[in-house]
Amino acid sequence: MYGVAILGFGVVGSGVAEVLTENAARIAKNAGRDLALKYILDVREFPGNPFERFIVHDFAVIENDPEIRVVVETIGGVGVAQDFTRRALAAGKSVVTSNKELVAKFGYELLQIAQERGVNYLFEASVGGGIPILRPITQCLAANRITEVYGILNGTTNYILTSMVRDGAAFDDALRTAQQLGYAEQNPTSDIDGIDACRKICILADLCYGRHVNPDAVTAIGIGKVTSDDTRFATAGNYAIKLLGRAVSREDGRIAAYVAPHLVPKSHLLASVEGVMNAIVVRGNAIGETMFYGAGAGKLPTASAVVADVIDAAKHDSLRKLISWEEGDEGMMFPSGQLESRWYARVASPEGSVKRVYPDVTILGGDTEVTGFVTASRSTKSAIEVSLGGFEVLSLFRVLD
Amino acid sequence: MYGVAILGFGVVGSGVAEVLTENAARIAKNAGRDLALKYILDVREFPGNPFERFIVHDFAVIENDPEIRVVVETIGGVGVAQDFTRRALAAGKSVVTSNKELVAKFGYELLQIAQERGVNYLFEASVGGGIPILRPITQCLAANRITEVYGILNGTTNYILTSMVRDGAAFDDALRTAQQLGYAEQNPTSDIDGIDACRKICILADLCYGRHVNPDAVTAIGIGKVTSDDTRFATAGNYAIKLLGRAVSREDGRIAAYVAPHLVPKSHLLASVEGVMNAIVVRGNAIGETMFYGAGAGKLPTASAVVADVIDAAKHDSLRKLISWEEGDEGMMFPSGQLESRWYARVASPEGSVKRVYPDVTILGGDTEVTGFVTASRSTKSAIEVSLGGFEVLSLFRVLD
Repeated sequence: MYGVAILGFGVVGSGVAEVLTENAARIAKNAGRDLALKYILDVREFPGNPFERFIVHDFAVIENDPEIRVVVETIGGVGVAQDFTRRALAAGKSVVTSNKELVAKFGYELLQIAQERGVNYLFEASVGGGIPILRPITQCLAANRITEVYGILNGTTNYILTSMVRDGAAFDDALRTAQQLGYAEQNPTSDIDGIDACRKICILADLCYGRHVNPDAVTAIGIGKVTSDDTRFATAGNYAIKLLGRAVSREDGRIAAYVAPHLVPKSHLLASVEGVMNAIVVRGNAIGETMFYGAGAGKLPTASAVVADVIDAAKHDSLRKLISWEEGDEGMMFPSGQLESRWYARVASPEGSVKRVYPDVTILGGDTEVTGFVTASRSTKSAIEVSLGGFEVLSLFRVLD
Repeated sequence: MYGVAILGFGVVGSGVAEVLTENAARIAKNAGRDLALKYILDVREFPGNPFERFIVHDFAVIENDPEIRVVVETIGGVGVAQDFTRRALAAGKSVVTSNKELVAKFGYELLQIAQERGVNYLFEASVGGGIPILRPITQCLAANRITEVYGILNGTTNYILTSMVRDGAAFDDALRTAQQLGYAEQNPTSDIDGIDACRKICILADLCYGRHVNPDAVTAIGIGKVTSDDTRFATAGNYAIKLLGRAVSREDGRIAAYVAPHLVPKSHLLASVEGVMNAIVVRGNAIGETMFYGAGAGKLPTASAVVADVIDAAKHDSLRKLISWEEGDEGMMFPSGQLESRWYARVASPEGSVKRVYPDVTILGGDTEVTGFVTASRSTKSAIEVSLGGFEVLSLFRVLD
């Protein structure tokens, strides 16, 4: 028996149970062997649920069962999820997860344990939900030196920004609708403030550049300060506003990574990625730019990615996947504020005075109260802040080239 | 020594040599061992070329050298390329190729030989150039039942259609420019007539649905009959015109596959895929829709995909990749004309008479000579042809839903 155990019977965990069951024939064919769901660990009971018979409450049952070869961790967070992951790996079982927080913070260590034990730690679902992205980066783009990775990594904020642009909704109203539709959590801080996107760009940077990028060392600016004035100005200038995570590999080997709202020209494919969809662009020295698009969250899309990892773990039971990265350090990070770009600014000032100070900007819109414009030349964040010193700056976002 | 031989020192072959050399460190890290380019087979001499010392003229040298573990076939066609591929596989060497014609026609047989010999036959570069697509389908989407795959599979025709829309160019002028820029060959039949796209949709269908789809059984309609009237009408109706390959898996297990021009609503991401870029959409029962975008051709992008396969072959030297499909037969194909869709028609007729016959159509444009419209309801190709019987039909394209 090639046994699978699921930790946590929430949205993703129950999706994994469903996909494993419904697509069993295709999965067996692709894995080259039958996979058998044996346990689902949860503190709750699920009377009447079709998966009720799999429920167990004690992790030791899973840990000590030699028939369990793959453990699917969909608990989330870095507490008990971390403990169970370490114990499962130590017990010689492969672990598959959608837990971006755990991978972003402790991926380096957990991969070390997996390597020592000769098992796999796989986490395709931790970035981009169901979008195949981590495996294409490690395998299909393996012949490239990757120079940049960036994208729309959080569906909740993209849904809110899309509503603000398409329906002219105010931020608070768009957030409330997202909560009603189940796209945003009741405590939406992790999404809105860019924390979720930050974890994902760190995992992407880990894989693209081969060193552990600590989320604590990456500046994340969320969408809380994007106003309907900004979306109006952006639309008038033929831009979309998108929250992007971005990680750049510099010539000197240092990595610049950050999360922040950007003005994206409508001619760029990312500008057309709407609602809860995600898209990730990878730039390599041979491939040029390639983009991966799909559902960044949701029960079945995420479960699809988790189960693909389970299949991969089953296929590679005797051969470890060569996924790993090296330890990081502070010196390897390049301050993201020193990355040059063009900038969008909204300032409290009559339009005329902006043009007097910056003859070279493109005015996106304005009136006697407020002006939105895009700079013609590229500069660092501190340089643009200095040169905006004469204005009350209401918004300041990068423009994606 | 883990030796690599390249067959054919043309655009892709020389790109492979360059990528293997320039990105050697990253490749060795990803493959877990050093790869050494040892031979390049070509009938020509290349005096002064940096790779001159690798050139050999006799395939037997490669065939009989036990140090050669991977053979890269970039010759093209189904003649000598097929012979060398069979001999390399028979000699126990893995073969990697960008040759879509050979894979589309003889992939089933060649994979059988590879399986018997315990080696790999890999062809990521045969579809979508550098875009990671075949491996994501076989691995990342392995937990899905795939219901549909479609996309822009040919960069030459997409360049021509983009020029016709963006610059209002006539077909012949756009083709000539594409030839001058090297995007189209001097004999462009294979691209223009949809033959190249047909081979690629067959390979995608093979992998998505697990049975060999014979290119001879797939109807391919090219872009030769797309006129500037059509692009004008499409633009007016907020559509792009794209040549799409499409393969649908029906509930009864049959497969419908075809290549034809489509009107694509501007709200669909595919409508924004311009110039020589390619994009492929995969629809699965768990993932929903996911899209892969990038350079569909070109020296380095294609070489990037080839070398990724070489790395994969080297990593899986002792373990075959589970890529294969079953033999096909005629009964498994569903006639593509019986797939229902909305339709765009351009007819020689004054606008008034179209509206009298079809009150429910959307008129995209017209005058006393010609009218372009989109039907409101879905129908098969034969049904729309019957109902258009009273008109002289100048163009008839599907509308992508």
